[in-house]
Amino acid sequence: MSDTIGVGLIGTGYMGKCHALAWTSVKAVFGDGPRPRLRHLAEASTDLAERRAGEFGFERASGDWRQLIDDPQVDVVSITTPNAFHAEMAVAALEAGKHVWCEKPMAVHLADAERMEAAARRSGRVAILGYNYIQSPMVRQIEELIGQGAIGTVNHVRIEMDEDFMADPEAQFYWKSEASSGYGALDDFAVHPLSLIRVLIGELTRVFAQQAKPYDSRPTQGGGRRAVETFDIANVLFEVGDVSGILAVNRSAWGRKGRIALQIFGSAGSILYDQERMNELQIYRASGAAAGQGFTTVLAGPLHKPYDRFIPAPGHGLGFNDLKIIECHELLRAIRGEPARVIDFSAGLGIERIVHAMARSHRDERWVRP
Amino acid sequence: MSDTIGVGLIGTGYMGKCHALAWTSVKAVFGDGPRPRLRHLAEASTDLAERRAGEFGFERASGDWRQLIDDPQVDVVSITTPNAFHAEMAVAALEAGKHVWCEKPMAVHLADAERMEAAARRSGRVAILGYNYIQSPMVRQIEELIGQGAIGTVNHVRIEMDEDFMADPEAQFYWKSEASSGYGALDDFAVHPLSLIRVLIGELTRVFAQQAKPYDSRPTQGGGRRAVETFDIANVLFEVGDVSGILAVNRSAWGRKGRIALQIFGSAGSILYDQERMNELQIYRASGAAAGQGFTTVLAGPLHKPYDRFIPAPGHGLGFNDLKIIECHELLRAIRGEPARVIDFSAGLGIERIVHAMARSHRDERWVRP
Amino acid sequence: MSDTIGVGLIGTGYMGKCHALAWTSVKAVFGDGPRPRLRHLAEASTDLAERRAGEFGFERASGDWRQLIDDPQVDVVSITTPNAFHAEMAVAALEAGKHVWCEKPMAVHLADAERMEAAARRSGRVAILGYNYIQSPMVRQIEELIGQGAIGTVNHVRIEMDEDFMADPEAQFYWKSEASSGYGALDDFAVHPLSLIRVLIGELTRVFAQQAKPYDSRPTQGGGRRAVETFDIANVLFEVGDVSGILAVNRSAWGRKGRIALQIFGSAGSILYDQERMNELQIYRASGAAAGQGFTTVLAGPLHKPYDRFIPAPGHGLGFNDLKIIECHELLRAIRGEPARVIDFSAGLGIERIVHAMARSHRDERWVRP
Amino acid sequence: MSDTIGVGLIGTGYMGKCHALAWTSVKAVFGDGPRPRLRHLAEASTDLAERRAGEFGFERASGDWRQLIDDPQVDVVSITTPNAFHAEMAVAALEAGKHVWCEKPMAVHLADAERMEAAARRSGRVAILGYNYIQSPMVRQIEELIGQGAIGTVNHVRIEMDEDFMADPEAQFYWKSEASSGYGALDDFAVHPLSLIRVLIGELTRVFAQQAKPYDSRPTQGGGRRAVETFDIANVLFEVGDVSGILAVNRSAWGRKGRIALQIFGSAGSILYDQERMNELQIYRASGAAAGQGFTTVLAGPLHKPYDRFIPAPGHGLGFNDLKIIECHELLRAIRGEPARVIDFSAGLGIERIVHAMARSHRDERWVRP
Repeated sequence: MSDTIGVGLIGTGYMGKCHALAWTSVKAVFGDGPRPRLRHLAEASTDLAERRAGEFGFERASGDWRQLIDDPQVDVVSITTPNAFHAEMAVAALEAGKHVWCEKPMAVHLADAERMEAAARRSGRVAILGYNYIQSPMVRQIEELIGQGAIGTVNHVRIEMDEDFMADPEAQFYWKSEASSGYGALDDFAVHPLSLIRVLIGELTRVFAQQAKPYDSRPTQGGGRRAVETFDIANVLFEVGDVSGILAVNRSAWGRKGRIALQIFGSAGSILYDQERMNELQIYRASGAAAGQGFTTVLAGPLHKPYDRFIPAPGHGLGFNDLKIIECHELLRAIRGEPARVIDFSAGLGIERIVHAMARSHRDERWVRP
Repeated sequence: MSDTIGVGLIGTGYMGKCHALAWTSVKAVFGDGPRPRLRHLAEASTDLAERRAGEFGFERASGDWRQLIDDPQVDVVSITTPNAFHAEMAVAALEAGKHVWCEKPMAVHLADAERMEAAARRSGRVAILGYNYIQSPMVRQIEELIGQGAIGTVNHVRIEMDEDFMADPEAQFYWKSEASSGYGALDDFAVHPLSLIRVLIGELTRVFAQQAKPYDSRPTQGGGRRAVETFDIANVLFEVGDVSGILAVNRSAWGRKGRIALQIFGSAGSILYDQERMNELQIYRASGAAAGQGFTTVLAGPLHKPYDRFIPAPGHGLGFNDLKIIECHELLRAIRGEPARVIDFSAGLGIERIVHAMARSHRDERWVRP
Repeated sequence: MSDTIGVGLIGTGYMGKCHALAWTSVKAVFGDGPRPRLRHLAEASTDLAERRAGEFGFERASGDWRQLIDDPQVDVVSITTPNAFHAEMAVAALEAGKHVWCEKPMAVHLADAERMEAAARRSGRVAILGYNYIQSPMVRQIEELIGQGAIGTVNHVRIEMDEDFMADPEAQFYWKSEASSGYGALDDFAVHPLSLIRVLIGELTRVFAQQAKPYDSRPTQGGGRRAVETFDIANVLFEVGDVSGILAVNRSAWGRKGRIALQIFGSAGSILYDQERMNELQIYRASGAAAGQGFTTVLAGPLHKPYDRFIPAPGHGLGFNDLKIIECHELLRAIRGEPARVIDFSAGLGIERIVHAMARSHRDERWVRP
Repeated sequence: MSDTIGVGLIGTGYMGKCHALAWTSVKAVFGDGPRPRLRHLAEASTDLAERRAGEFGFERASGDWRQLIDDPQVDVVSITTPNAFHAEMAVAALEAGKHVWCEKPMAVHLADAERMEAAARRSGRVAILGYNYIQSPMVRQIEELIGQGAIGTVNHVRIEMDEDFMADPEAQFYWKSEASSGYGALDDFAVHPLSLIRVLIGELTRVFAQQAKPYDSRPTQGGGRRAVETFDIANVLFEVGDVSGILAVNRSAWGRKGRIALQIFGSAGSILYDQERMNELQIYRASGAAAGQGFTTVLAGPLHKPYDRFIPAPGHGLGFNDLKIIECHELLRAIRGEPARVIDFSAGLGIERIVHAMARSHRDERWVRP
């Protein structure tokens, strides 16, 4: 492998900027691997592409993403456009021999996700999804603790994901309330907890889901109201073999901003985590003097890899954007053929299938095996 | 009404002592109503009854509870014996014209609960159940906040109740793992959250339940193992009209000691509460300057009735036993014909019916309307 | 000792009610010792005395406290009147051969405290002060942990006590802002932390104090303003031998309701405690796997004596009034000649001397040895 | 100003890497200002310099920092070497016409700090210190809240800074325990809180300090022990005009990893902050319905500038390294002549003077005016 790797970026919104920052910093943070060269940036218009290329430090800018795909200087493509474009872009990039780093979720329709997964398989290239929460040093620590048997055999899990960007009933109707955008909280949100369950617990074997609409209608620009077609709330009972669990997601939960709260119960202890305090985990161990037992709050530090690559002192705190840098590093490891902590298109398709199984369960009011 | 009221107490375990303390303190705390006179205490043996009567300050002691029921000095009977005895004792007390304060749950079998409710109705006496958590000043405050519209229209609720007294897989098999004791966490635990849902949200209209066993078997005294027959975990999706909700109970949850965690989401805010920190509630209001919004932690104080009857200064904290004193005072109000905050036998029967409906839902794997 | 002990109560405000509840409940909670008989209650007027006697269950009521002192049925006297009356009443009670349970602080003037201590010494009776926070099961647990060496050798302590009843600058001038009431936060508040330092760490050897007035004047009824004469804030550097420490008290601290926050640092760990969450303590131990170290939050339970006398289940929570019941029980132990956890008049005088030494330090701007 | 700015970096330890990351990301994050070009990196040896230049993406590498100072491509120099080198390097850089971004503290000796400040003044260049905590969006928010009068007039402040890297008494003696390194916690730590007090409250007018050694000696490599010469603990009473305050710093505080805890009390409310949870602040406002008052926990979000430049969604969290990116952006603003939030060499010298005044206060046991 050469000393550098050529990067292309399609889309420069929230996640596009995250990817740009990750590509820029990954080498300085980790010190290993090729140096990313920011070769080509594509946006909806040439103007916007050029402006962003200036800000982010890309060498070329295009108003047409296909030019980026055709650029021989580009080795890996970050796709951060709206979900509806993922399939077309990812398939094209893979067919052009590029590696792909695509934001989640894969696609609105299962058929598109399947197409993406097939293209990845055929291409022999690395294709991963932006499930960044699995990269949190504290989540990695939880995985290690479970693996070490620190809480014995896991028997019950609860996971909640809540934000409040849909909580205002008088906020205007927009595309997230349209059926064409998907089911609602189930695909918009639940995929993140599902990536964590996959990494920490295992494959779901059975689900029972209920979706709910906190608000029947929302105001429209014209002054009228339009019926809401998606579900801002989804509640799911699930099983991972013998492990029972609950998944609850709500994008209308006033006061919650980035909550992903995990409760994992085992035969010898419990673990708690909340993404809103991503630099902490809590562990209860049913051992030692009984009068001294309680939940121990562990602050992230250099012992919780790869926190040490960012900061050598404990308790200083990583941020959300740092998760994306870690994810980028894992992608580079995968590209180099090293074992990597990623949700690739195959695993991602598994998550998509679960989401659709949950929607079927809701519709049919019965347990469904994904 | 005379200046005093004659009290009988059957059972002197955990709850028996709580009742005794409540009867002893209620007049000094609240200053109103009749003075309770501790007339008669019954226990399984005369010896034990006499010892406890000495400690608790009762005038008479009997080894046979029927003597207590026959005692004309007794106006109200506290029943704090194991659940299996509730029905017989409560019915006898009511038929003898006594008021009854019976610990929860009503009875293992629905038929017994129905018998108790019928006896109460016939008697014209006051008959209430020991659902003390509804008496917490913070729970009362939550009710007021919801009533005032502080969080708008409630649309989603999550409630968890967890303890860890069944969490040790190597703890010996005992009666709580026997099918004769009931379903498990569902009737042992879920009744408390159900009392809170009833008071704060309303009547359940639909439930879907799943029960789970974290441990298949437990060791027996003889050195063998015995299959566990009850479910230490129960997870329930529910609806109260348009409000969706989740109820999760787990008596094998390492690290949880007395957790009853409420999350109530509305169209204008949210409320959080955890019984392990019973002197606090958290409220988020979607109003005021956006940059200053967040969950406000309110500490219990004299403005949260009836905290003021215990302590005139805020932030000093009530304890669990104080809830029982408040409950006792509400019982006395009911006896005087005043409006009272109680779960009477009729409401309690409603809770029992929901528990049995949940068990049916689990068995049949379908939504059930209680 | 007979089976009962005769109780007299002078004063029926906040603390008077606490004492009454403690006397009423102590036998039922602990099961041992004599049964308190509520013999005689004294208040400022006969009317009030009679009303309170009815509520609290006392047999006799007087508008003159000297009648209570003369009552041969009274063995022990609870003194809960304003501080200015403590000395006269306590001395009279002791000289009449009664045991005394007097609320803190002992007296406004050191000479009065000395007189009380001398009377107690002469009388051979038990005379204790109402320093209830040392009775908290979690504080007792901290003492045990330190004694066991759980955090090694203590080398640094921080203690804060804050409330906000003087925080409103527009609240009317009242006696707490008059110099005749004492120094301000120093004697009003600091005595509580000092009782904790005494029990947990040891005798103060050196102090440097600064007092401050957050508000220079306060409004008066007439519409004018009056200069504030006391200090609502006091900050103290101190030493207990080689242990350095900080004491900070503030009765104008908006948002603090009953905060007494302890931070104790040792060579092998640390302990944290806050009275606003009196059923929790936090301990950090510098041992075990480094990646798992953190503060462990321990919830009060039956293993933390004497929590078990109140509730057999952990995590259910004691309240402030329960501390007074424990204190009452310790008093009864002292009266029976058993080792007891109390601040007697001799120890209390030591606390008073420290307060006055702090005030001298402030005045002279130098370190003072109490 | 040209489109780019040439960056030199001296030192590549903890802070050196932070600076490198900041220079790399600042343009992509903020979108404005010149693009930093990483021109020249200097380390103690050419080998190390070249390795780090490769990792961090610098164009040139030198084993002699003077070559970097002489490099005409370099416009601004980051100095992140041990404190003893700051003065010589900063003065040389300023005299060569470079802007300087120097890590804190300025220098061990006051004379060196004065020399640095004079050189900055003479040069007309921008010279700032790495007091990154003032850059936290939540700290900025606190400043705004105070400025808006959200808590009325500030009257009392407490600030604590604690870590535990010196907490192990059996850790080997190293240079931080030598007198040549400075006073100990006072200059190693206290400068950070002092930067916060300066920004949030104002200039200290009077200090009284006490320093303490938790451990008298530490083991040496040879197997013996050596007397500790510095103070790991420092406690300071202070005044900012009428505002009283406490500063407590402890680098031997087991369990504390990056705690900088602020308590700010005003006439209409209070604000709390802890750097270990840098994405939260707490505010209490003495307004609105009294029954609903409490501390509101605000999660950082786009409304708290410049969080929005990093992440458009609230509650996702910035990390420690992001503070350095913000600091870098403020430096660039200063270089462009725009108003900037920085501690320049003049303000930094003020902080150094306070530290030395505190040491004098400790020595002389008296209040000192800096």
